Amino acid sequence: MHTRFFDELSVGDKFETRAITISEGMILDFALTYDPQHMHTDKVQAEAGPFGGLIASGFQTMALSFRMFYDLGIVTESNIIGPGMDALRWTAPVHPGDTIHAVWEVLELTPSRSKPDRGTVRWRNTTYNQHGVEVMTYEPIMILRRSPQAAA
Amino acid sequence: MHTRFFDELSVGDKFETRAITISEGMILDFALTYDPQHMHTDKVQAEAGPFGGLIASGFQTMALSFRMFYDLGIVTESNIIGPGMDALRWTAPVHPGDTIHAVWEVLELTPSRSKPDRGTVRWRNTTYNQHGVEVMTYEPIMILRRSPQAAA
Repeated sequence: MHTRFFDELSVGDKFETRAITISEGMILDFALTYDPQHMHTDKVQAEAGPFGGLIASGFQTMALSFRMFYDLGIVTESNIIGPGMDALRWTAPVHPGDTIHAVWEVLELTPSRSKPDRGTVRWRNTTYNQHGVEVMTYEPIMILRRSPQAAA
Repeated sequence: MHTRFFDELSVGDKFETRAITISEGMILDFALTYDPQHMHTDKVQAEAGPFGGLIASGFQTMALSFRMFYDLGIVTESNIIGPGMDALRWTAPVHPGDTIHAVWEVLELTPSRSKPDRGTVRWRNTTYNQHGVEVMTYEPIMILRRSPQAAA
């Protein structure tokens, strides 16, 4: 998919990503560095806990979901920077062996008042597992370049 | 620091974490898997870009900031789950060699109405670099156990 500049997006546009399978090894490896809570690092204790086994760190699900979106190529050349995100919710656990994918929808498009070469996009990322269960949502913000024609 | 149960926290409590130095290798390694944008993976292109060099993926800064908080031990035994976060903003770039730390402040404490053994804490995490510049803020939500006495 070719890069979309700010002007090439419309509110309501949706993009579905590829899927990625999250292995037990990936969960343990990420968690040991970034989120070493029992539920992400200790299989024995996790099996006795509320989720009945290991679950992925929410930070890992969040970052993988971005990676899947990035692989679409939509913002490869147009993204200037992501200033933040809002309303992140982890709505269901991600277990070893689950296969997740995401749908990114354009929520808002705001041209910059001060810089004619860019605009702000608010997205909603909804991430699902292989059963179609929603496991996460968040609303990332990105500053995208306008197409050379529109910015001229 | 010993675990704090829900009842052992007050609005306004602040906890300062240890610091962590982020190396170029850490930035490249994380980005190649989770956030392979030029600004995080390609030193040559990044040096010609708006930040004058490589910067860390915001997802990495976010997760490291959680790790530093977790290492305090405050929620090791009390945390049940983190349902989400709000108002994440990356306010300044994190460069290779920067040393970050965070301050976590208790914003809101809401006892559960339906489950007497737990309550919801809303925190504000403010992360700084070695010059005292704020590089990131976010408001994580955690469901913490009440102390055995309070829940009885």
